[in-house]
Amino acid sequence: MAEILAALRSLMSSHDPPLHALVVPSEDYHQSEYVSARDKRREFVSGFTGSAGLALITMNEALLWTDGRYFLQATQELTGEWKLMRMLEDPAVDVWMANNLPNDAAIGVDPWCVSIDTAQRWERAFAKKQQKLVQTSTNLVDKVWKNRPPVETYPVTVQQIEFAGSSVVEKLKELREKLTNEKARGIIITTLDEVNLSFFSFLCSNIYKPSCFFQVAWLYNIRGTDVPYCPVVHAFAIVTTNAAFLYVDKRKVSSEVISFLKESGVEVRDYDAVSSDVVLLQSNQLNPPADVQGSDLIWADPNSCSYALYSKLNSDKVLLQQSPLALAKAIKNPVELDGLKKAHIRDGAAIVQYIIWLDKQMQEIYGASGYFLEGEATKEKKHSGTVKLTEVTVSDKLESFRASKEHFRGLSFPTISSVGPNAAIMHYSPQSETCAEMDPNSIYLCDSGAQYQDGTTDITRTFHFGKPSAHEKACYTAVLKGHIALGNAVFPNGTCGHTLDILARLPLWKYGLDYRHGTGHGVGSYLNVHEGPQSISFKPRNVPIHASMTATDEPGYYEDGNFGIRLENVLVVTDANTKFNFGDKGYLSFEHITWAPYQIKMINLKSLTPEEIDWLNAYHSKCRDILAPYLDEAELAWLKKATEPASA
Amino acid sequence: MAEILAALRSLMSSHDPPLHALVVPSEDYHQSEYVSARDKRREFVSGFTGSAGLALITMNEALLWTDGRYFLQATQELTGEWKLMRMLEDPAVDVWMANNLPNDAAIGVDPWCVSIDTAQRWERAFAKKQQKLVQTSTNLVDKVWKNRPPVETYPVTVQQIEFAGSSVVEKLKELREKLTNEKARGIIITTLDEVNLSFFSFLCSNIYKPSCFFQVAWLYNIRGTDVPYCPVVHAFAIVTTNAAFLYVDKRKVSSEVISFLKESGVEVRDYDAVSSDVVLLQSNQLNPPADVQGSDLIWADPNSCSYALYSKLNSDKVLLQQSPLALAKAIKNPVELDGLKKAHIRDGAAIVQYIIWLDKQMQEIYGASGYFLEGEATKEKKHSGTVKLTEVTVSDKLESFRASKEHFRGLSFPTISSVGPNAAIMHYSPQSETCAEMDPNSIYLCDSGAQYQDGTTDITRTFHFGKPSAHEKACYTAVLKGHIALGNAVFPNGTCGHTLDILARLPLWKYGLDYRHGTGHGVGSYLNVHEGPQSISFKPRNVPIHASMTATDEPGYYEDGNFGIRLENVLVVTDANTKFNFGDKGYLSFEHITWAPYQIKMINLKSLTPEEIDWLNAYHSKCRDILAPYLDEAELAWLKKATEPASA
Repeated sequence: MAEILAALRSLMSSHDPPLHALVVPSEDYHQSEYVSARDKRREFVSGFTGSAGLALITMNEALLWTDGRYFLQATQELTGEWKLMRMLEDPAVDVWMANNLPNDAAIGVDPWCVSIDTAQRWERAFAKKQQKLVQTSTNLVDKVWKNRPPVETYPVTVQQIEFAGSSVVEKLKELREKLTNEKARGIIITTLDEVNLSFFSFLCSNIYKPSCFFQVAWLYNIRGTDVPYCPVVHAFAIVTTNAAFLYVDKRKVSSEVISFLKESGVEVRDYDAVSSDVVLLQSNQLNPPADVQGSDLIWADPNSCSYALYSKLNSDKVLLQQSPLALAKAIKNPVELDGLKKAHIRDGAAIVQYIIWLDKQMQEIYGASGYFLEGEATKEKKHSGTVKLTEVTVSDKLESFRASKEHFRGLSFPTISSVGPNAAIMHYSPQSETCAEMDPNSIYLCDSGAQYQDGTTDITRTFHFGKPSAHEKACYTAVLKGHIALGNAVFPNGTCGHTLDILARLPLWKYGLDYRHGTGHGVGSYLNVHEGPQSISFKPRNVPIHASMTATDEPGYYEDGNFGIRLENVLVVTDANTKFNFGDKGYLSFEHITWAPYQIKMINLKSLTPEEIDWLNAYHSKCRDILAPYLDEAELAWLKKATEPASA
Repeated sequence: MAEILAALRSLMSSHDPPLHALVVPSEDYHQSEYVSARDKRREFVSGFTGSAGLALITMNEALLWTDGRYFLQATQELTGEWKLMRMLEDPAVDVWMANNLPNDAAIGVDPWCVSIDTAQRWERAFAKKQQKLVQTSTNLVDKVWKNRPPVETYPVTVQQIEFAGSSVVEKLKELREKLTNEKARGIIITTLDEVNLSFFSFLCSNIYKPSCFFQVAWLYNIRGTDVPYCPVVHAFAIVTTNAAFLYVDKRKVSSEVISFLKESGVEVRDYDAVSSDVVLLQSNQLNPPADVQGSDLIWADPNSCSYALYSKLNSDKVLLQQSPLALAKAIKNPVELDGLKKAHIRDGAAIVQYIIWLDKQMQEIYGASGYFLEGEATKEKKHSGTVKLTEVTVSDKLESFRASKEHFRGLSFPTISSVGPNAAIMHYSPQSETCAEMDPNSIYLCDSGAQYQDGTTDITRTFHFGKPSAHEKACYTAVLKGHIALGNAVFPNGTCGHTLDILARLPLWKYGLDYRHGTGHGVGSYLNVHEGPQSISFKPRNVPIHASMTATDEPGYYEDGNFGIRLENVLVVTDANTKFNFGDKGYLSFEHITWAPYQIKMINLKSLTPEEIDWLNAYHSKCRDILAPYLDEAELAWLKKATEPASA
């Protein structure tokens, strides 16, 4: 580390102008939070491997900002040269720079790695001491990074119309109507997809970024594998009133894909050409020139467009406004909805197969009473020392069940497979070397999802294979009541997710319990598992819920050092067909599309209302019918038992 | 009208500078919405008698802006010279002025009648055409107003410590701590109480003014009768770090009151002296000079302080920020809470006596089946033509029951006593000449309240004395379910009223029904019946609910031309004593302090959950026990029947 810092400081000194400080963000050129290996610049300079953070290097200090879930890890990974700055406890990076760097300081950053909003916020903070944000012409970290991983050229694939539901031509037509409405001649699209909308952003809603991320993949009906868990490709796009361009490493694009795009009215250009093309776009010399007719603005999303591209534009002629693509993508078309539902059925079958397998293993290996019976585990493991199940080995098994299903393309995020106290760590990601062994006397929480070509899934179930405590059952029941209440809500058009959030919390609040994360996020169509702009959260976000949006319903309860409970289904927003229609607003409701049983033995049935029991029985009955075709006889027999009608 | 307009235009022409337009707001010098007779300037010039509106007079036009509830009335009352401008449909007054008045126009207003916020908003609108807001040195309307009602000098009374609970000395001490924290040398207090926070503002939350209204009456423990329904006195106050002043018509203040105030550290000065004293305050020459110590700001609330007073200050040294008194007043002290509860018990007894009386009358006069039985009324009125009950005569009877109770001081707002379709008009205020006759075949809604020296009350009950339709019962039941759900909520500290609002609506939404008003407002302690800053509304307001605040719980449903239903209790926010305390936040719940039965025959008991039935029975049981000491034997027998345990 000392060597890297010395090399960087030498480059900072010789830079023109000399830099007092260098900012190294985690983000890549597309403002992604999760980045490919060669883009992990912040990790390279600091040694800190967490997914979120920002490094600042001055001539005599090196500081790393990260958030609460990483404080422990950062302490362990940072060497003596580095100081940990705790987000929400220590001063924010812009405040620190403004206060601690000298008057007139030059603070360098690679302008491709920061958004317009971020750069402008820093510049405001710097103004009072006449400090300056300096855009480095190259990335200084890349210059000192020997052995930087090479560029990988994963192929781009076409998301066929049978899955996409809407053609590129149709999507471009709608986008151009929005450009015209805003008097914009063109729009710059920089984000791959809403990869910034990470699960952590969702959990810690206070740093939840506004949802305004474009996506090249959705617009052009293409997919890739450049980013783990998210089938997108590193690319930019520019769309004008009469042309559309894709900027991508051409080695990734086969002639078939090029033809497909050409037929859709999209020209493929070199990844690096976006820079010069943005300049041409500004002067309307991009070939073919746009049909102007009084529209001379260039639309750029301040939260996702890089400062580098923005700086090439005449700021008077930039429309800094949230992209229209976020909402267009969030409201699923009928084909996407159909695909999502089918993907969730196959995924549910995999989940049920996994529970059955795990139930058997827990009984055989650990002497657990099992999924159905509420008994103490036998003291001795039946196969003690010979066979061992861990959080990772079981989640690998879950992946294998999913992988056997049609259209499987991978997981949609790292499986949270967590036992006992680990389940209380909302962001737990088990590692083979350090993860816990399965325990018949502890709660097991499993939050997982997959990418299928027809849809993305996300489901959480919580289990106990032995004897849960009365307290654990009370908490599970309260979480379930909230989960049911949100799923059963009927609400007028115009209602925001924030308004509904309380429904999932109220049963916990009655006991003085709560959870520190949001209740629901959108889910993509073979795209990111965390999608906006809608959000069901305690933090206000003024985005009304629309019919045909998706939202997860995932309340939880976490007791530090003891256990964690979360129940999660994906919902689709549908018209409610209410008896009346007061105010002619139209009323909406949710349809569950996730299918897997809730563990009846964890529920205090007497605490459920008759309506809740009716709902549970109806869901279980549907679950059985829907999954039956995907299960063998023994599996179906197990599912029948798991979904037997319950009564108080 | 033509004569008045001509006289005003003549004054406008001869004004220096000549005025292109004159604004005549409804508000008095304290930004009150409900004003005394001599302050009804807008009514005098326009002839429009509604409580809210704004008149604009140009050289050739006269326009009146008002809101939806008054469109019909304004059309009837305005003469041909006047044009009605519909709020939320036509352009807003500032937009209209900016667009329709010439460049460089001079627009006059009495700066005492507009708040800082309003004046600054207008000035911003005027800037683009170099128009100017001109402060007239006198009120031009007063100059042309022959026969203007004289000043009335209602006496100021002291709200004794046995009711106020906190002395003026204590209140001033707390206020001064807040001044010191904000580096303010003094604060200007202009509002009598939150009279602007009218029921209409509450209903139409989109024009709900931010709650930032000071109150002289609360701070100085004085009351008056200058404003109908609200026991306040026309007065200003200035509080500095070492002095406190009350500006009031001295004829209203007895030597006893002057002594009381003097002992409390408050000096009484002439009402008009506030103007010159504000100037002295700015230069710290107000005697005695304030203890400065680096505090040189003057605190003024932009939503309530008049532009006239603000204009006398050096704007660089003004702290434009919501007053600390709003929150201080909203969080009731134990004595105030005790008084409120006692007042509500006496008030509940009056309500029960009224229902009993009405039940008997409806049976005797109109042959109704009555409160308990669900039968068609006999076709012939028993006393047809001889005795007649109207919305007004019955509400007069209700007032007489209240007036018989200890500490009664008057009503807290005009009783909404409404039959059938009138009950669907949320703001209905029956007039003797035009009001409807009672009808045994229609719903009767009664929203009423009183001022008692120990507390202010507000209650709504809805009845049917004949045979309600299945639809009416379904709606009543849905409203009741929402009313119960909100009252039973448990929620962590920091929760805003907006978050809870959905609980009262959800049972209606399930049918596609809703209501177009907020769900709850604060209630004063022998002060205004509509009090902020808390609010339970569909409109977001970022004011957390605190323990010891009050809030009404009043969902409703209104069907145009048919009927209206509302159920309203006053709640007090209390610590919830939950089993756990996740996040150490502390959890809150509500305590009902209103006591009157719900009409069982209006409830579909089978639609209630077991918990809802338990709540209803427990409430009714407590109602009976609490009110028993205030009722005679026959009344108690009736109440026992009305509160018999119900079951599904």
